[in-house]
Amino acid sequence: MPLLSETIAKIQPLNERAMQAAQERQAQLTKPAGSLGRLEEISIQLAGITAQPRPRFNQPAVITMAADHGVALQGVSAYPREVTPQMVLNFLRGGAAINVLARHVGARVVVVDMGVASDFAPDSDLVIKKIAFGTHDFSKGPAMSRDEAQRAVEAGIEVAAREIDQGADLLATGDMGIGNTTPSSAIVAALTHRPVAEVTGRGTGVGDAGLAHKVVVIECALAVNRPDPADALDVLSKVGGFEIGGLAGVMLGAAARRVPVVIDGFISGAAAMIAYHLTSSVQPYLIAAHRSVEIGHRVMLEYLKLKPLFDLDLRLGEGTGAALGISLCLAACKILDEMATFAEAGVSEKAE
Amino acid sequence: MPLLSETIAKIQPLNERAMQAAQERQAQLTKPAGSLGRLEEISIQLAGITAQPRPRFNQPAVITMAADHGVALQGVSAYPREVTPQMVLNFLRGGAAINVLARHVGARVVVVDMGVASDFAPDSDLVIKKIAFGTHDFSKGPAMSRDEAQRAVEAGIEVAAREIDQGADLLATGDMGIGNTTPSSAIVAALTHRPVAEVTGRGTGVGDAGLAHKVVVIECALAVNRPDPADALDVLSKVGGFEIGGLAGVMLGAAARRVPVVIDGFISGAAAMIAYHLTSSVQPYLIAAHRSVEIGHRVMLEYLKLKPLFDLDLRLGEGTGAALGISLCLAACKILDEMATFAEAGVSEKAE
Repeated sequence: MPLLSETIAKIQPLNERAMQAAQERQAQLTKPAGSLGRLEEISIQLAGITAQPRPRFNQPAVITMAADHGVALQGVSAYPREVTPQMVLNFLRGGAAINVLARHVGARVVVVDMGVASDFAPDSDLVIKKIAFGTHDFSKGPAMSRDEAQRAVEAGIEVAAREIDQGADLLATGDMGIGNTTPSSAIVAALTHRPVAEVTGRGTGVGDAGLAHKVVVIECALAVNRPDPADALDVLSKVGGFEIGGLAGVMLGAAARRVPVVIDGFISGAAAMIAYHLTSSVQPYLIAAHRSVEIGHRVMLEYLKLKPLFDLDLRLGEGTGAALGISLCLAACKILDEMATFAEAGVSEKAE
Repeated sequence: MPLLSETIAKIQPLNERAMQAAQERQAQLTKPAGSLGRLEEISIQLAGITAQPRPRFNQPAVITMAADHGVALQGVSAYPREVTPQMVLNFLRGGAAINVLARHVGARVVVVDMGVASDFAPDSDLVIKKIAFGTHDFSKGPAMSRDEAQRAVEAGIEVAAREIDQGADLLATGDMGIGNTTPSSAIVAALTHRPVAEVTGRGTGVGDAGLAHKVVVIECALAVNRPDPADALDVLSKVGGFEIGGLAGVMLGAAARRVPVVIDGFISGAAAMIAYHLTSSVQPYLIAAHRSVEIGHRVMLEYLKLKPLFDLDLRLGEGTGAALGISLCLAACKILDEMATFAEAGVSEKAE
């Protein structure tokens, strides 16, 4: 059986018993029941994901996948394409926002070349899963072949498996790829039938004319490629990107191993839509960190039935929002695990 | 000059030069300008507060103030009054939610008895600033004398000063006091002239009948005491609480020393309203961590012109939301301080 279908077949529902135990313990901790809101919910979800009544996480990792996009040649981004490999090197040297935030929350950063349009000098910290040197310009034809789309997703599954084998117990997703809000908007438009203009934003910061041009490029791409909304791999191959496919694979691979995945913003959201379309069983394993500034992100979160933890007006990507989300997941589990119960602390319970 | 007026006189505007330098550095870091949203804003505010272009914080502390409330005898809370001292002991033993979250973010918890209605065995970790053994039942007359109100605020100033002298460089506020959403609602109603029902919520979880009763008790208190909305100390003395006064003092004391204060939810919000009414110069030193479930909190945040960082449906108090806010403040400053610039990383800038 190919890795993709094998992985999908392995994804199980959340463990109800662990969730029940976590819920009961939350009610015994020295606080009014429910008073820690979303932190309590998340702790119960994490119990269900891991099948542990009191989950603990020791090795969170942010998987940041990079790739280039042929459509960037159409001038859809405010930045030149050379920034993709430059930022990969910045990640490897620890100088990017994701490095700072991952250090802050105690997570490793795993940098993956899924399809950057240039070669890197050998670096033991760079995971090479290059499908090709960037996608084709999808305003003129498919971004990649169907085989490449499947290989991108399977590469993501392999990356997740490798990290989990090496001890990672909580994953988060991030991306780097100049032009990659364009395929993300194309994916959300293709899968939800929303007008392109409603799901397309300014990315790294194009102006009004740039935004209008970006919308036209995506409309053109959808007309030229006619992605089949009933077939996620078709959508990914026609108007997607290698890092988007890879991140979808990370989500599937983590879910198959009962490892939670904190997803970042707009590009991770596009990947989550592909993963969710491949199998809705992945959904309970996902935790949406934040609501991005990109307007299409709201549509994605609705489609995914995910409620983000926070909204800090972020629009950077890389996994920056997801890194902050890791910290909230850890906090939620520590509350569940470390707080005293009413009985232990000798505190009176609520008057009935 | 009394400590209160002396402290108010010391509060300076934010340092424009440091803010300018922080803003300029944010624009040079390897990310699209503004793409880290509120984190960038907060880093600039913290630069202005500390007068440091790249502020660093090493010793955050959550100051959790406890007190009892005579009005709790009117049955306005879901919990018996004995829970206040029980929870103080829980704080001292490290078993409460605030202990778990403060540990998670690397902050100390400073527990202060501002007016609990019982004595504690000597404990070097408990700061005693007891103004009295709980307030009077303010549904029948003033909660405290004007002198006590002033002493409560001044005690808070002293606590902040002591912690700052011992190295604390970032403060957060928290509270414990069975019944204390009742004085907080009374304060917001008194200062904003809003109907009591619009600013009164379920606190630790009273039912519909309990909520209706709570509204009547507060309306009665306002009618009996006629707090003067032009005089914050009058409002505090008539319908406030000792921990609320103390927390107002912490905010003023921190601002006078250029130390930022992350404020928690509804009770800290009431304290912030008192502090702000005493001097609006305190406002730029405050960072609102979250939006509480308590309905009156929105009104408070509007009054204070503060935008909360997140909304996780919290309604516990103790400083739990503020502790999570500390982590975001630290993250914001690390971004400003630790990220590589475009020049350092050899990354191309935005095409103009």
